[in-house]
Amino acid sequence: MRILEEAAGRLTGRFGPSVVVTGAEARPYAGDMMYRATQAAVCVFRPDSTRMLSDGLKALADLDLDFVPRGGGSGLAGGATPDGTRASIIVSTERMRAIRRIDPRGRLMVAEAGVVLAEAQQAALEAGLQLGLTHGGAGSASLGGSISTNAGGANVLRYGMARDQLLGLEAVLPCGTVIGQASELWKDNTGYNLAQLIAGAEGTLAFVTAVTLKLRAGAKDRQAALFAVSSPAAALDLLALSHETLGEAICAAELMSGDAVDFAARMDCAGSPLEDRHDWLLLIEAEATSRFFDLAGGFEALLEEAFEQELVHDGVLAQSEAQRLGLWHLREGVAEAMDLHRGPILRTDCSVPVEAVPKFVAGVAEGTAAKAPEAFAAFFGHLGDGNIHVNFLPRPDIAPAGLPGALSLMVEDVARGLSGSVSAEHGIGLHKRDALARMKPAAELSLMARIKAAFDPGGRLNPGKIFSAPTGAADKEGSE
Amino acid sequence: MRILEEAAGRLTGRFGPSVVVTGAEARPYAGDMMYRATQAAVCVFRPDSTRMLSDGLKALADLDLDFVPRGGGSGLAGGATPDGTRASIIVSTERMRAIRRIDPRGRLMVAEAGVVLAEAQQAALEAGLQLGLTHGGAGSASLGGSISTNAGGANVLRYGMARDQLLGLEAVLPCGTVIGQASELWKDNTGYNLAQLIAGAEGTLAFVTAVTLKLRAGAKDRQAALFAVSSPAAALDLLALSHETLGEAICAAELMSGDAVDFAARMDCAGSPLEDRHDWLLLIEAEATSRFFDLAGGFEALLEEAFEQELVHDGVLAQSEAQRLGLWHLREGVAEAMDLHRGPILRTDCSVPVEAVPKFVAGVAEGTAAKAPEAFAAFFGHLGDGNIHVNFLPRPDIAPAGLPGALSLMVEDVARGLSGSVSAEHGIGLHKRDALARMKPAAELSLMARIKAAFDPGGRLNPGKIFSAPTGAADKEGSE
Repeated sequence: MRILEEAAGRLTGRFGPSVVVTGAEARPYAGDMMYRATQAAVCVFRPDSTRMLSDGLKALADLDLDFVPRGGGSGLAGGATPDGTRASIIVSTERMRAIRRIDPRGRLMVAEAGVVLAEAQQAALEAGLQLGLTHGGAGSASLGGSISTNAGGANVLRYGMARDQLLGLEAVLPCGTVIGQASELWKDNTGYNLAQLIAGAEGTLAFVTAVTLKLRAGAKDRQAALFAVSSPAAALDLLALSHETLGEAICAAELMSGDAVDFAARMDCAGSPLEDRHDWLLLIEAEATSRFFDLAGGFEALLEEAFEQELVHDGVLAQSEAQRLGLWHLREGVAEAMDLHRGPILRTDCSVPVEAVPKFVAGVAEGTAAKAPEAFAAFFGHLGDGNIHVNFLPRPDIAPAGLPGALSLMVEDVARGLSGSVSAEHGIGLHKRDALARMKPAAELSLMARIKAAFDPGGRLNPGKIFSAPTGAADKEGSE
Repeated sequence: MRILEEAAGRLTGRFGPSVVVTGAEARPYAGDMMYRATQAAVCVFRPDSTRMLSDGLKALADLDLDFVPRGGGSGLAGGATPDGTRASIIVSTERMRAIRRIDPRGRLMVAEAGVVLAEAQQAALEAGLQLGLTHGGAGSASLGGSISTNAGGANVLRYGMARDQLLGLEAVLPCGTVIGQASELWKDNTGYNLAQLIAGAEGTLAFVTAVTLKLRAGAKDRQAALFAVSSPAAALDLLALSHETLGEAICAAELMSGDAVDFAARMDCAGSPLEDRHDWLLLIEAEATSRFFDLAGGFEALLEEAFEQELVHDGVLAQSEAQRLGLWHLREGVAEAMDLHRGPILRTDCSVPVEAVPKFVAGVAEGTAAKAPEAFAAFFGHLGDGNIHVNFLPRPDIAPAGLPGALSLMVEDVARGLSGSVSAEHGIGLHKRDALARMKPAAELSLMARIKAAFDPGGRLNPGKIFSAPTGAADKEGSE
């Protein structure tokens, strides 16, 4: 496309050839883990500073172009995928990788958007502190992407979502104006909190260029245990006992169905350390940030009390760091087994009130039996946040066309019937636009559209995300 | 004013006489702790439900009126004070007092906006949990006001600001449309987070009618100690050691200048339990949410180590709950002594990066000596958040007119010179509009104005707050 050539020419003329990627080399940038833009013409702009991004946007202001912000590409909802309706510049933060400052006393980190989550975690650890955010994509997800999508993960129970880590945010509007600051303040009540609005906006309001993140006290000890329980309701009882025993130290409560664990074992991904097969497993992890916290003693008391109250059929306390990591290997294996299986996977990401998890699981199981008795459904996820993922292998070879969509809708309907959400942590992107339109009242959607216009009057920034729009050329990888 | 009579008539006709207060009885509603609207004509609307508020706003839609949301009236920045430019309906949430639900397992509370913070705290305690928010105004501040102003306080170090407690929010737009939900979800990534935008917007975007707040694990033990240190820099060293020893359990680190403590003693407000007089005192509090946390042991180790490293001149560990409350009585007495003194007080509320607190204190002391050597300046506040309040008794009997304003500007300039904020936790309201205009780039202020217009196109909701506007009839109580 002529217009992309013109844009690429202006950018390389101004900043040198390394800032632009086009043609076949640009292909890997044109999507996330789930959605690829196979037909959209793209050009990638890779600024190495906020200033360069700002200048670049201003240099392209008169061209009829869209801009798509891109972090690590680990999203699952198509939030970084050009929707194909117009020529798009993908703006990659991969060269904005400086950790500007770590202040152990101020307990914060200032880092550029392209820093990979795992890098930031490591830097925090080296300063004797920790970042309160981790998720399955930590090895590739960027900080900018994690904040823009308000990423969740396994530690939300203790430290909250990505937005809960956020103290300051520097961003660039589509017109090139820099707003906000990655300041080092814990308290700053000066007008509307633009940082919190941009967090979770999936790159539709502004480009995130740098963030200030809270750092938490470093872990002095970390313990985990795996429990066999008879049902999600029993898992909730056990989680309540865990909170009673260990308080805020509880940082993860991951539920897995026996079927999902069996499947992971069959795929050679991971196996349970428990002797028998159980219907449900709950992984509880806690961490102590003081040497005066007897975490091991607390876990032993929890195990004992859980047996005494007959809340659990079996249980094992990790006796070493290797064993603890083994339990997490099991949890992660449950998710990975689905990916290793040949054939399409249908992922879901709904949340319900914590107390409603048993009803959610029962409702989805019932709906699956009715709609697709031959499909395999794996339940796993974050019990303490009411966010149980249900992933399906829908057997498309024998299932009618449209079944994945029907299953997806079924899960969303079950969640909504329990006052839940159609997107707990993965976001809307291209993937859940219709679901969002069904879930939110028109008045709220139109308010959101007015907010969007306040930031991006030309509608050039990540168009087609969150809000329903004419279908573009983005093709889903796998089914849906 | 005819228009207020018309409005009052419509509201009483529709909802009965108890929903409206006018005339002299309405006066107490026309301001907060610092700003009174002495000339503005006001009428108070006291809906008892979200529905009634929505219907009332719709019934008044055609009248040329402003609306001023009001919680407990404990603000310090004039955020709930009619600015007097037009006839105003004050909307008080005092009758919206239901705690709709406490879910101990979901660890959350759903409550209406008019619930007093102390009531919510008590309800959480009765459920075996706690609200992670407390501040000096807890006995009168409402939840709606606390969220609308993003209140801070002493526990921010551990639990964050008011917005960090927020899971869901129900609000009413000035046109009467209800938006958002006080839902019971820990994870909900469905479009822009309107709740986080409305939090801290000081009632300029929407009326907050109900909130869902996180509940934290209940405290099993709470310990506090008072340390004498030689300087704010030494206090920071001690806080770092406290974090190293007790980790995330640290929930407050309150710094007080010796002068402020002396003044409190002279005013018979409170006295230090330490034998000698010291230049600086630091109150450290920690809480354990598990019985397996040996907090007392941790504090003894902290005391010992602090003496060994010569970080402290003296220190005392509260040996009983009464002694612990006594330490807080001292901290609160330092603030109250200023109020008890006859004559005007100048309050300030700036924040700086934590590491910059020593420079902030030195800069303000220097500026005070230069501008008003006869003024008394009390330093006290939240060391761990970089939010040290400096309150002045400026001796107006001998000081030139305009001195309070000059001192205020001096403190703000010192903070800004250290990359700080002109409003840490009190907000902008009427009080800091000019300071905000000086601090924020024009592009950000105009973006905020566009966001305001997206919610309130008629500019009827809490006009004159945050944004600079023609001076109205609101008079400051006391100086500034």
